[in-house]
Amino acid sequence: MIVVLREGATKEQIKKVEHKLLELGFKTHPIYGEFKTVIGAIGDKRNINKNLILSMEGVEEIVPIMLPYKLASRELYKNPTVIDVGGVKIGGDEIVVMAGPCAIEGEAEFIEVAQAVKKSGAKILRGGAYKPRSSPYSFQGLEEEGLKIMSAARAATGLKLVTEVVDTRDVEIVDQYTDILQIGARNMQNFRLLKEVGNGKKPVLLKRGLAATITEWLMAAEYIMSEGNEKVILCERGIRTYETSTRNTMDISAIPVIKGASHLPIVADPSHGTGHTKYVPSMARAAVAAGADGLIVEVHQDPPNAMSDGEQSLTPAEFDRVMKEVSKIAQAVGRSI
Amino acid sequence: MIVVLREGATKEQIKKVEHKLLELGFKTHPIYGEFKTVIGAIGDKRNINKNLILSMEGVEEIVPIMLPYKLASRELYKNPTVIDVGGVKIGGDEIVVMAGPCAIEGEAEFIEVAQAVKKSGAKILRGGAYKPRSSPYSFQGLEEEGLKIMSAARAATGLKLVTEVVDTRDVEIVDQYTDILQIGARNMQNFRLLKEVGNGKKPVLLKRGLAATITEWLMAAEYIMSEGNEKVILCERGIRTYETSTRNTMDISAIPVIKGASHLPIVADPSHGTGHTKYVPSMARAAVAAGADGLIVEVHQDPPNAMSDGEQSLTPAEFDRVMKEVSKIAQAVGRSI
Amino acid sequence: MIVVLREGATKEQIKKVEHKLLELGFKTHPIYGEFKTVIGAIGDKRNINKNLILSMEGVEEIVPIMLPYKLASRELYKNPTVIDVGGVKIGGDEIVVMAGPCAIEGEAEFIEVAQAVKKSGAKILRGGAYKPRSSPYSFQGLEEEGLKIMSAARAATGLKLVTEVVDTRDVEIVDQYTDILQIGARNMQNFRLLKEVGNGKKPVLLKRGLAATITEWLMAAEYIMSEGNEKVILCERGIRTYETSTRNTMDISAIPVIKGASHLPIVADPSHGTGHTKYVPSMARAAVAAGADGLIVEVHQDPPNAMSDGEQSLTPAEFDRVMKEVSKIAQAVGRSI
Amino acid sequence: MIVVLREGATKEQIKKVEHKLLELGFKTHPIYGEFKTVIGAIGDKRNINKNLILSMEGVEEIVPIMLPYKLASRELYKNPTVIDVGGVKIGGDEIVVMAGPCAIEGEAEFIEVAQAVKKSGAKILRGGAYKPRSSPYSFQGLEEEGLKIMSAARAATGLKLVTEVVDTRDVEIVDQYTDILQIGARNMQNFRLLKEVGNGKKPVLLKRGLAATITEWLMAAEYIMSEGNEKVILCERGIRTYETSTRNTMDISAIPVIKGASHLPIVADPSHGTGHTKYVPSMARAAVAAGADGLIVEVHQDPPNAMSDGEQSLTPAEFDRVMKEVSKIAQAVGRSI
Repeated sequence: MIVVLREGATKEQIKKVEHKLLELGFKTHPIYGEFKTVIGAIGDKRNINKNLILSMEGVEEIVPIMLPYKLASRELYKNPTVIDVGGVKIGGDEIVVMAGPCAIEGEAEFIEVAQAVKKSGAKILRGGAYKPRSSPYSFQGLEEEGLKIMSAARAATGLKLVTEVVDTRDVEIVDQYTDILQIGARNMQNFRLLKEVGNGKKPVLLKRGLAATITEWLMAAEYIMSEGNEKVILCERGIRTYETSTRNTMDISAIPVIKGASHLPIVADPSHGTGHTKYVPSMARAAVAAGADGLIVEVHQDPPNAMSDGEQSLTPAEFDRVMKEVSKIAQAVGRSI
Repeated sequence: MIVVLREGATKEQIKKVEHKLLELGFKTHPIYGEFKTVIGAIGDKRNINKNLILSMEGVEEIVPIMLPYKLASRELYKNPTVIDVGGVKIGGDEIVVMAGPCAIEGEAEFIEVAQAVKKSGAKILRGGAYKPRSSPYSFQGLEEEGLKIMSAARAATGLKLVTEVVDTRDVEIVDQYTDILQIGARNMQNFRLLKEVGNGKKPVLLKRGLAATITEWLMAAEYIMSEGNEKVILCERGIRTYETSTRNTMDISAIPVIKGASHLPIVADPSHGTGHTKYVPSMARAAVAAGADGLIVEVHQDPPNAMSDGEQSLTPAEFDRVMKEVSKIAQAVGRSI
Repeated sequence: MIVVLREGATKEQIKKVEHKLLELGFKTHPIYGEFKTVIGAIGDKRNINKNLILSMEGVEEIVPIMLPYKLASRELYKNPTVIDVGGVKIGGDEIVVMAGPCAIEGEAEFIEVAQAVKKSGAKILRGGAYKPRSSPYSFQGLEEEGLKIMSAARAATGLKLVTEVVDTRDVEIVDQYTDILQIGARNMQNFRLLKEVGNGKKPVLLKRGLAATITEWLMAAEYIMSEGNEKVILCERGIRTYETSTRNTMDISAIPVIKGASHLPIVADPSHGTGHTKYVPSMARAAVAAGADGLIVEVHQDPPNAMSDGEQSLTPAEFDRVMKEVSKIAQAVGRSI
Repeated sequence: MIVVLREGATKEQIKKVEHKLLELGFKTHPIYGEFKTVIGAIGDKRNINKNLILSMEGVEEIVPIMLPYKLASRELYKNPTVIDVGGVKIGGDEIVVMAGPCAIEGEAEFIEVAQAVKKSGAKILRGGAYKPRSSPYSFQGLEEEGLKIMSAARAATGLKLVTEVVDTRDVEIVDQYTDILQIGARNMQNFRLLKEVGNGKKPVLLKRGLAATITEWLMAAEYIMSEGNEKVILCERGIRTYETSTRNTMDISAIPVIKGASHLPIVADPSHGTGHTKYVPSMARAAVAAGADGLIVEVHQDPPNAMSDGEQSLTPAEFDRVMKEVSKIAQAVGRSI
């Protein structure tokens, strides 16, 4: 790291800072500029208490040189990670599409929609059994009954499952049923939950927090990975901005930024990213054109009657059209669905 | 609510929408404008699935007239709520100050800082036993041992305690030790945790989420209150914006906005709100001048060696000066400390 | 518009509001709900002083039903507008690419880059003669000399020209040389400048302001159009958010939103949108996949030595590759380059 | 500045970067870390084209050590600047209040409000003759007639004048009438306008841009100062965030940040900062408590009938109460009104 001293820092102050850095185990290289002095501090100490230095007299700021995450970084693993979900490979040449309703409402309907999305080319079935709803008066999900329905749909279709877990106490049970555990945007910094899924073996779909920076997102991945589970799939789902014409602002540029910074696969969620059915097709195309490894899309037979997120759900027929469009984009970027 | 039809919606479409509204139990009042038709739908149905209407042909948007929260609203309780924490009243004439270190590191030091902040006028002692840290490699807190130290400090000083709970599994134990349960910014929409503290009887300090709107924040309060625990104290601690010269942007105007929209008391956290010791005094003064009912401030004997948040902690001597300044502001607005 | 009365508004207050609305020329339709009363006010009076009503006792808020813009809206013109720039059609089936350096530095180099981008398929040549730079110590552009060089490059290549105008005093001279007048992001709400280009006949490329909402952007277009010049081309170039890994956050979803709200064509600027050469190809592809009518891209023979924006400029060879990639995407969405 | 090389940069690459830095006139100090190499480059070259280095192979990023502004910085002038406006001193012990209507509507009314605000303690009279309105269909101001009315009000009351200039072509005429030239938020990066007022001698009130960082704001001040006019008064007026309960989010912490970074005085605008009359008193108090050198407040005899910004204007009676409240806060921080 680089320690920048204030203009007018005294020799005494500079010497003390250097001494402290040596004491902390760094090698030091002071550079005396015309106006300011900086000290290069050598040593990979990502977890040093920076404040020991920052609070010293004469110190202006500290510039970190090393990234705060390791396991999630391209610096460690140069090659893209491909995550195998029972034969479905995420992060490879194929664009993997996850689809299904926001919330699970009943078995017959769920299996019906599962068959429909499978027919259109989806490989993974999404559905919510435990729902984080912003109002306490909204439908909160079918819980274990929902997981059983998902399991039945998997048996009926062969699709793999992804579903959200919202409480540390539920990780064990959700893990028994699902193929991928989803951490929702509101729980991206629920660190206890991250550790809990990090202790398991199932792949984790880690949604970006509502206002998380890319660094914080990769730090959340690092939490999971540092517990031993390196199978993290990132999911861009829109960030909070001042613009209100969409539910969130989908940060499509996060896709190439992640591809440069991390070896982990990244999928995109145009349903939550936009919040409106009519914008889902164009944003699904854009995400794949930008390099996403997959999509997660809300599909419901009867969006007006959906118990959650109907305004951003596609019908099976609309989903089928989107798959056809996205397939052409996939080909245009040298990939397939 | 008001249903706005698109320009060019047909009579047929309008009739169908009206019919559906009646079916859902609303009384309807269509208004035929020059260009657009709107339908007033009467009936307090906050939890109706809006999408049933939104998805109908010819419908442009729905404008809600009622607020999504009730218990947290001024519409229900016209008078400010005063929360009694073992004799310390939050929301009354007195400005209540909560102070202490970010993380609890050891008993002797913690009692020392407790005595110092008490001497300067703090009524409630803060300290972190369970820490949500953005890096998995940072100090995560002393957990129950920390709670025991807090308890000892209460015994030694008579100060009341506030401490954060980060996991549903810990609510029971934290509840046994503390006087106020804190829900941190990252957990403001951890709905299970909100329900869990809503089932208890201890007052809850609910920090605003990193990028939460005021409506979402009050909905989080509603979650707690709807479980039966109406003792919620709101805490403004800065929001995420594009500005990087402060850790967050402290939304001082949230104080008068909350005072207008809710009956709940609100305190301010200038330590997290700014992220820099040097900005804490001015923002503490500003918060009280704007009408805050209290402050929560990080104080540490030796900020450079603090295991967490040292860069935003005051020394006891600095805290004492801030208390004197804030006391003058409190008087200027007709209150006291 | 809809006037919402507070809960508890008296009959007297409601009557007075209705009376005032009638006085202002509206027809009124009060709707008495269980808790609140609302009054539908009929009449297309977009420019009424809302405060006349808002300030009345008992009034809570006003909900506008009509959009604040007319000429830029789809409500007026149902079909997409195609703008003809000397034979190059923007807004039709063809994706139109504008390319060239950020600033014009010299004639020989500019003509060279013009020939290169033409060869790769660009139809319009961009270049800055008047530069808005955030530092007063940075290169400010060649001004009229730059315009002459652009003119020479047009003569040499047949490409059409787009260049920015930054001051009302320069509109006349810039208009003499260029084919499209560009209004930069920082001037999107420089209303005098908008009026000045609105009085001309040349098409205007209107960049979205750094933190402009889509409504404000269309209102800026309305400023130009209301002066008589309806040839406005919108340009998405990224918005300001909290994320710092890109220079701006490119709001790709603005493309379908604009397509739904307005009949005007929209192009995208992946150079300013991302700020980094390495992210330009993926975001150029994404924009076209999402439905953009064109692109504007910074190209420089020697980006390291560019006097402005070198870090986001492509070399001619890189640009050629991007054009090939984008061409495939264009085909995938049924368009061509 | 510090040049950071990528992990894995070759010796050859490092040598080339060092060579280039020497060629550009820097002295170089390479520091070889365990994973990365950084090169300290000594020499105050704020305007070097960083891209010459950034684009070299093996270079990851450049960390600037010097601030991009000089004249506006505390590094140059250690003492606060006090600006004398015909005897009214801004930046000294006294809190200076500027008040008046958003737009000038007529002479009699304007003089009446001027007398009222003077009586309550305002020292400077504000009023808009040239109005930047977001809709082309809104009232655009009385222009020179408005300036004449302002002049008459000055003659009648002795108050100094502040008014906005929105076009380079109007600087000369506005300068003839006013005592302080205001640059509005939308023109903070209208660099030509900044230069024009920088060439004059009248103090300039520089409002912060809608989404400007503090650094960009000080760079705008630098534009004015680098032309020779060092009399810049900064004005915090709220920034754009995702929160919609206020028109803008008033960044009160910008006050202590500016006090630390610059020697220039700073005033606050709670009218635009909040957009609602009811929040103006609390935010006026907060700004002064945080250290603002003054306030600028919208006052109108009849806000409901104001031609602009009525929803955020105070009546003279309300203003008088705010002045009394703010006066107490000023005393509490050791200042006066």
